Amino acid sequence: MLQSKLLVKTSKTPPKDEISLNAKLLIRAGFVDKLMAGVYSLTPLGFRVFKKIENIIRQEMNKIHGQELLLPSLHPQKNWEKTGRWKQMDDLFKIPLNERKNFALGPTHEEVITPLAQKFISSYKDLPQYVYQFQNKFRLEKRAKSGLLRCLEFVMKDLYSFHATQKSLDQFYEQVKKAYQNIFTRCGLGDITYLTYASGGTFSKYSHEFQTLTQSGEDHIYLCPECQIAINQEIIKEQKKSCPQCQNSQLEKKKAVEVGNIFKLGTRFSQAFGLRFSAKDGRIKPVIMGCYGIGLQRVMGAVVETQNDSRGIIWPEEIAPFKVHIIQLEDKDQNVKEQARTLYDLTKKEKIPTLLDDRKDKKPGEKFADADLFGIPLRVVVSQNTSRQKKYELKHRNKEKKILLSQQQLLKIIKR
Amino acid sequence: MLQSKLLVKTSKTPPKDEISLNAKLLIRAGFVDKLMAGVYSLTPLGFRVFKKIENIIRQEMNKIHGQELLLPSLHPQKNWEKTGRWKQMDDLFKIPLNERKNFALGPTHEEVITPLAQKFISSYKDLPQYVYQFQNKFRLEKRAKSGLLRCLEFVMKDLYSFHATQKSLDQFYEQVKKAYQNIFTRCGLGDITYLTYASGGTFSKYSHEFQTLTQSGEDHIYLCPECQIAINQEIIKEQKKSCPQCQNSQLEKKKAVEVGNIFKLGTRFSQAFGLRFSAKDGRIKPVIMGCYGIGLQRVMGAVVETQNDSRGIIWPEEIAPFKVHIIQLEDKDQNVKEQARTLYDLTKKEKIPTLLDDRKDKKPGEKFADADLFGIPLRVVVSQNTSRQKKYELKHRNKEKKILLSQQQLLKIIKR
Repeated sequence: MLQSKLLVKTSKTPPKDEISLNAKLLIRAGFVDKLMAGVYSLTPLGFRVFKKIENIIRQEMNKIHGQELLLPSLHPQKNWEKTGRWKQMDDLFKIPLNERKNFALGPTHEEVITPLAQKFISSYKDLPQYVYQFQNKFRLEKRAKSGLLRCLEFVMKDLYSFHATQKSLDQFYEQVKKAYQNIFTRCGLGDITYLTYASGGTFSKYSHEFQTLTQSGEDHIYLCPECQIAINQEIIKEQKKSCPQCQNSQLEKKKAVEVGNIFKLGTRFSQAFGLRFSAKDGRIKPVIMGCYGIGLQRVMGAVVETQNDSRGIIWPEEIAPFKVHIIQLEDKDQNVKEQARTLYDLTKKEKIPTLLDDRKDKKPGEKFADADLFGIPLRVVVSQNTSRQKKYELKHRNKEKKILLSQQQLLKIIKR
Repeated sequence: MLQSKLLVKTSKTPPKDEISLNAKLLIRAGFVDKLMAGVYSLTPLGFRVFKKIENIIRQEMNKIHGQELLLPSLHPQKNWEKTGRWKQMDDLFKIPLNERKNFALGPTHEEVITPLAQKFISSYKDLPQYVYQFQNKFRLEKRAKSGLLRCLEFVMKDLYSFHATQKSLDQFYEQVKKAYQNIFTRCGLGDITYLTYASGGTFSKYSHEFQTLTQSGEDHIYLCPECQIAINQEIIKEQKKSCPQCQNSQLEKKKAVEVGNIFKLGTRFSQAFGLRFSAKDGRIKPVIMGCYGIGLQRVMGAVVETQNDSRGIIWPEEIAPFKVHIIQLEDKDQNVKEQARTLYDLTKKEKIPTLLDDRKDKKPGEKFADADLFGIPLRVVVSQNTSRQKKYELKHRNKEKKILLSQQQLLKIIKR
């Protein structure tokens, strides 16, 4: 894409009404725009990152045989009354229509997927089932001040599983754990994201969160360095401050943000909606369920929060908006222009997402500053100097070294 | 995909609470599920169709250089007050928070995109810009009884364009017209969808709708057989009942449903939000805007409404949930099973979306009935009879003839 055509522009000064680093950087770089507290638009730049995160999640969900669907945001009040959550959930958005009828804006979708599944599942032969969606979620946060880490509206990937036996749920739950680890690794959060034991509710001792270490996180977790797992503060007392896997009590307290969570729901929702099946032995039983969520904006925010330097964002390659950022300097020099355009056309042919900074009215310093702020992994400078030598200057966003390369050498690296 | 693993099942009886044909067929076939009046879930089957429509639209929007983004559904009341539409729009969903602050649920996004654009556009050099999204829209319909043709919540592709001159808008408007014609043709609605003159508002004499002929439509249009265009009833009087292109007055009145519309907004919204730019001559002017919408569920509903027979849906190939439906009969015959599976594996290798009906407890009649209801373009039967002859029986959903083919002959047709 040509940068001269891009809707967004960077800003030199951080927004005054943001205190979180992720929002400051993302707004300055033009990836998101704040509509109001906790509600952000994704600009064409930010949307590219968002879509890459979405595609990674989709691929990993499809690998474990998830079937994608789409459930509405508007829910009837009666579904939420059936589960008791119309009154229980403080952060439920309620839309009044009249005395008898109100809507909820879905903060999660158990109240919709369970009655839907109930129409199609009646026998053990219909089980297991795994369905997921990417859909907006709404939560009435009172104090949204963490940028993309805590939004009133955000897109969640929510997966729901339906099982005939506890064993079937347990097996699938382990598969999701691995899929989630793949997702966070591919999003560049693998090293700092910990499988974290959290409270489980009636149907299992624990649920599990995926917590990414960051000072800006609102959660406190206790790391076990031996097992590479963590324990959420909410259960650390009942855990007697020791690791549930190795009983190690030398735990490290850290701040973190929850980027995903997986939960064995058991029969809480199937019983509320009468989702039953006839088992092999002929008995009628409630279906056993699990739910598994990842907030996409939160993943994006967590990446920015943890991968940056004083100059801007450093996107991990798989979710970067572009792989290559060509900086064309001296726009009046025909050779420079042609050399930059040749490389741009070659990346296009190879289907390597590339941004060409072809802006005419910008000084080299401004172009470099914008490139650092954008955080695209590979920066390639084309100037009179490089052009004279028939070379390109390559710099990785996360390294300081600049190297001069021939077109062939450069393409080899870019195509990797 | 294996049909035995599919979440959904067909139903023999149409839903009692639906009067529209599209909802009856889509619910019976298991493509959608009704959550409440005007609010539908897309099941994994329906979602496949939806995603294909989305991808067609995305491709055509990218061809005309649209930049995809994502705007929130929750809008601050003040933005809607700025344009006067907080009070004007009867079908606006309002969420009360407190006396000073309320939210609207976006029925359209001019109130969000205009102030966003205002942050980045300041000079004629920043123009034109074209941005679009796929996002949920909410409209408080009082009587939703047309199935997917009129929903309280639906996904819309909305494109917004920003221009320095009227000429630039006019040129882009014509490009969108062509893009829309491509979209409706690819969705299988080309022959019955008419570019329709409708009222334009302050800034241009006309807007244009894309109207698909169907008895279930709520609009009335007047066709000009000469020009292959139509006039919406709302302006037929001021048009003096004649075609705006050829002045022909022999028009045919028809019922239709609006599947898309394009509108020259002029400066209505840029003036409300102070979206101005400095022109080449140095003068400060308001940006000229256009907006262009397509409702995805409505396209899906219009296709079903117009392309069906007494046995079920007949999907146009480009938006069918699968291209091929293999019906494996006599599941105890190992040869039949193997032959069906061989074909299934071959289609997988060729990346041809295929559904294999491998269900064990279904009679041939049930399998054929489900196949007709699903409406997948190519049905391939594998039975003891075909297996003995080492052939496959092919039938197009929209033809009656069945033909026996060798694997090679069949693959040639499937790959087309």
